[in-house]
Amino acid sequence: MQHHSPIVPDPTASREQSLDPADWEELRQLGHRMLDDMMNYLQTVRERPAWQPIPAEALEAMHQPLPEFPQDASAVYEDFVRNVLPYNKNNIHPRFWSWVEGGGTPFGMLADMLASGMNPNLAIGDHAPVHIERQVLDWCKSIFSFPPTASGILTSGASMANITALVVARNQILPQVIRQKGLRAAPGQPLIYGSSETHNCVVKGAVVIGIGSDNFRKVPVDAEYRIKIDVLRQMIREDRAAGHLPFCIVGNAGTVNTGAIDDLAGLAEVARSEQLWFHVDGAFGAVPILLPEFAEQLRGLEAADSLSFDFHKWFYMNYEVGAVLIRDSAAHRDAYSSPVGYLAAHERGLAGGPEPLSNYGMELSRGFRALKVWMLLKQNGIRQYEYLVRRNISQSQYLAALVTTSPDLELMAPVPLNIVCYRYNPGNLDEAALNALNKELLQQLQEQGIATPSYTLLEGRYAIRVAITNHRSTREDFDLLIDATIRLGRSIHPPAQNQR
Amino acid sequence: MQHHSPIVPDPTASREQSLDPADWEELRQLGHRMLDDMMNYLQTVRERPAWQPIPAEALEAMHQPLPEFPQDASAVYEDFVRNVLPYNKNNIHPRFWSWVEGGGTPFGMLADMLASGMNPNLAIGDHAPVHIERQVLDWCKSIFSFPPTASGILTSGASMANITALVVARNQILPQVIRQKGLRAAPGQPLIYGSSETHNCVVKGAVVIGIGSDNFRKVPVDAEYRIKIDVLRQMIREDRAAGHLPFCIVGNAGTVNTGAIDDLAGLAEVARSEQLWFHVDGAFGAVPILLPEFAEQLRGLEAADSLSFDFHKWFYMNYEVGAVLIRDSAAHRDAYSSPVGYLAAHERGLAGGPEPLSNYGMELSRGFRALKVWMLLKQNGIRQYEYLVRRNISQSQYLAALVTTSPDLELMAPVPLNIVCYRYNPGNLDEAALNALNKELLQQLQEQGIATPSYTLLEGRYAIRVAITNHRSTREDFDLLIDATIRLGRSIHPPAQNQR
Repeated sequence: MQHHSPIVPDPTASREQSLDPADWEELRQLGHRMLDDMMNYLQTVRERPAWQPIPAEALEAMHQPLPEFPQDASAVYEDFVRNVLPYNKNNIHPRFWSWVEGGGTPFGMLADMLASGMNPNLAIGDHAPVHIERQVLDWCKSIFSFPPTASGILTSGASMANITALVVARNQILPQVIRQKGLRAAPGQPLIYGSSETHNCVVKGAVVIGIGSDNFRKVPVDAEYRIKIDVLRQMIREDRAAGHLPFCIVGNAGTVNTGAIDDLAGLAEVARSEQLWFHVDGAFGAVPILLPEFAEQLRGLEAADSLSFDFHKWFYMNYEVGAVLIRDSAAHRDAYSSPVGYLAAHERGLAGGPEPLSNYGMELSRGFRALKVWMLLKQNGIRQYEYLVRRNISQSQYLAALVTTSPDLELMAPVPLNIVCYRYNPGNLDEAALNALNKELLQQLQEQGIATPSYTLLEGRYAIRVAITNHRSTREDFDLLIDATIRLGRSIHPPAQNQR
Repeated sequence: MQHHSPIVPDPTASREQSLDPADWEELRQLGHRMLDDMMNYLQTVRERPAWQPIPAEALEAMHQPLPEFPQDASAVYEDFVRNVLPYNKNNIHPRFWSWVEGGGTPFGMLADMLASGMNPNLAIGDHAPVHIERQVLDWCKSIFSFPPTASGILTSGASMANITALVVARNQILPQVIRQKGLRAAPGQPLIYGSSETHNCVVKGAVVIGIGSDNFRKVPVDAEYRIKIDVLRQMIREDRAAGHLPFCIVGNAGTVNTGAIDDLAGLAEVARSEQLWFHVDGAFGAVPILLPEFAEQLRGLEAADSLSFDFHKWFYMNYEVGAVLIRDSAAHRDAYSSPVGYLAAHERGLAGGPEPLSNYGMELSRGFRALKVWMLLKQNGIRQYEYLVRRNISQSQYLAALVTTSPDLELMAPVPLNIVCYRYNPGNLDEAALNALNKELLQQLQEQGIATPSYTLLEGRYAIRVAITNHRSTREDFDLLIDATIRLGRSIHPPAQNQR
């Protein structure tokens, strides 16, 4: 920081200056303009390209020196409108199907405005926002059939939810000892098990909590990308024989690559008989618990010791909000609570109220993400989500049917949920060439603003991957995707003559 | 989840239903009403009590069964206006001085609305939002004199920023080995050092990353609550002699209890000579680096290996946003990056662009918190923050002077920064009675809506603690606090006769 002459408060000023506007009416008008612009923006999202690259002049606006002096709020907003808004990631678009990201809603945006204006920190204290989060957590327990005595906390998303749960699971190896003495006090190397399709954020979690990436044991999967439970049992046996310390099984309710759902009831049984913690990563794939026809496939979810899921994925809520539920609230509390003077609860006043939420997670700074969840669940009702999740699943079946009935296309994996992996295959190329071709095809799909699927590698084969957690997609959007895939594929590499 | 008859999509519907409003104009009007209400709410904050308890009927509204069916957006909003908004934590109030929490601004609220409407996930991809976060991180380096080659990431706050840095520091004990094999591969028990005044979130971080709370070594402090560096050196020596593995020193730029700033240059020198990682927790107390007159007190900050700070505390930004800077970007990247197929970067298209931000932190779900930082730094300019931080520090000196000149009051700790600890002392009570009296007094201050300081224990003595990171406070607010403290104190327990 370079310094010039210091700016000193003017002691003669009758009313001291704050960051509130000097002219409230002016800012209010700007706010109304922003709101109109955003409502127009959201209302017309379908008319714009699914994605577009950032031009050089917009990039320049994001590489400026630190602003020294004030600038009109309206000028700052103009800069946003010119250089930021048009180059959105656009997971709000009806044909965004990359990674697993929901699209948010206009009412969610308004709820976030209210939350930011109220501006509470939800770690501690007696105020309505902490009660709203507790209400939301109770609703989560109800959705996922966790007992009322379970605990939970809202997080930025499933990555943090998974890590939050893994810390609790790890501490249970030797309650109190691990918390106080650390991992070196464990009587052996602690191990976590999950399928080879487990999301990398779980491996990252194993690194963060000191277990190490090698000590996340990748269990092989079957042809449907589900964990092989017999192999899991054998691995646990062998690891125990080698003096190691298995402590946790992670089950997948919806893998990132293909949407596979592990045999959760089978995993729960292994965990019970082996006395291991059973965590379920249900980032998006736990949500179909809303659908009676998925009760059997998700059986065992209700038996988990801990469960992670996102509201910004398949509940279509605005970024960012996920959650973790933990059956044993005492274990949860033991992992994160701390008796320090400046956080001690009082009987009355601001420092009274319910137990601090910071006793259940890593954060002492916690925004009011609970408000949008509360408002959106009230606005839509849980059965509206049931309807939309079912529709996304039916759209994935529809898309898979379009793929399998097209001679130019190849379905790359089973479609148990909402993820469709396919490729363009003109029939006369080796795997490496097919990979390059499909990567080029995907990039063109995106560059031309047609649609934004993502991609993955399935046993080394590049797949165009369509993950449907999108409340704005219609069947026509999938027709359009398939037509464009075939058209672009043929333009890059026409099919072999004998196939036409 | 109890299920009734499933809700199935209507295949005959010409336009499929989404979560966007059926009537955009209606939602737009509701949005404008919300915006007006919030602007009024913020404009009149000074006229309302600093805090008020939640009445039973409002609490009831937060304990309802999971909503099953849709409800009008306007009805949901009415519920919010009636039961949530009035019972805010109210860290937006000019006389909120609890814990360390900033008050946000109306423009910050609008920026959050824009961010939520755009709804990007900033983990990965080529889009303007990730470039905005990179711009903000570059500005952070500029503010704190970190080199342009340093890395960083925005977090929910300083707790997460501290943990993010501690993982990097811990992995550097044996690069790659700790990441892959975990903490049990370390050639001794890793130890972290910090003063006994270090914030509990650092101890929590030591638990999370597998070090254990006992292995955060609390170094005693001097009369000014600053770490005793000679004792630190001795502790490191003794721990090494005992076969342990010191790896990290945490310096405090602003302790939570009293705002003490450790001798950071001295700590940097110990870290250098002992080859330890030097992390600075500067949640709020790093921000006076903006003030030339604090350059000497904060000397050594620029030498830190990693630095945590918050934008929602002493930059007065809306919850939630903090940041961590890390000098060695390769070490940072090594801790969090992961080569998996579904996250592989592409040359072009949505999956192109700069290196994923998820390579620098735990989260794969990351909202657009960068937008408010970008817009607010542009709107206000860094020198406006310099002005306001200086004013808060001068206010703390003013308040300390009010305390020391009042015979009924006692200053409980030095006031090096923006935190004033004091108590009402009528002169004829033992310590236990004084503690009970001041706790009652604080609760009455809050219950009567006068002001919301918090509290802490300083060597067992209860102190009313005023932490000033408030851009709305004026000198009159502190006059009012002191008048009320004396009035309430005398009503609870009048001073001894011989003192009057």
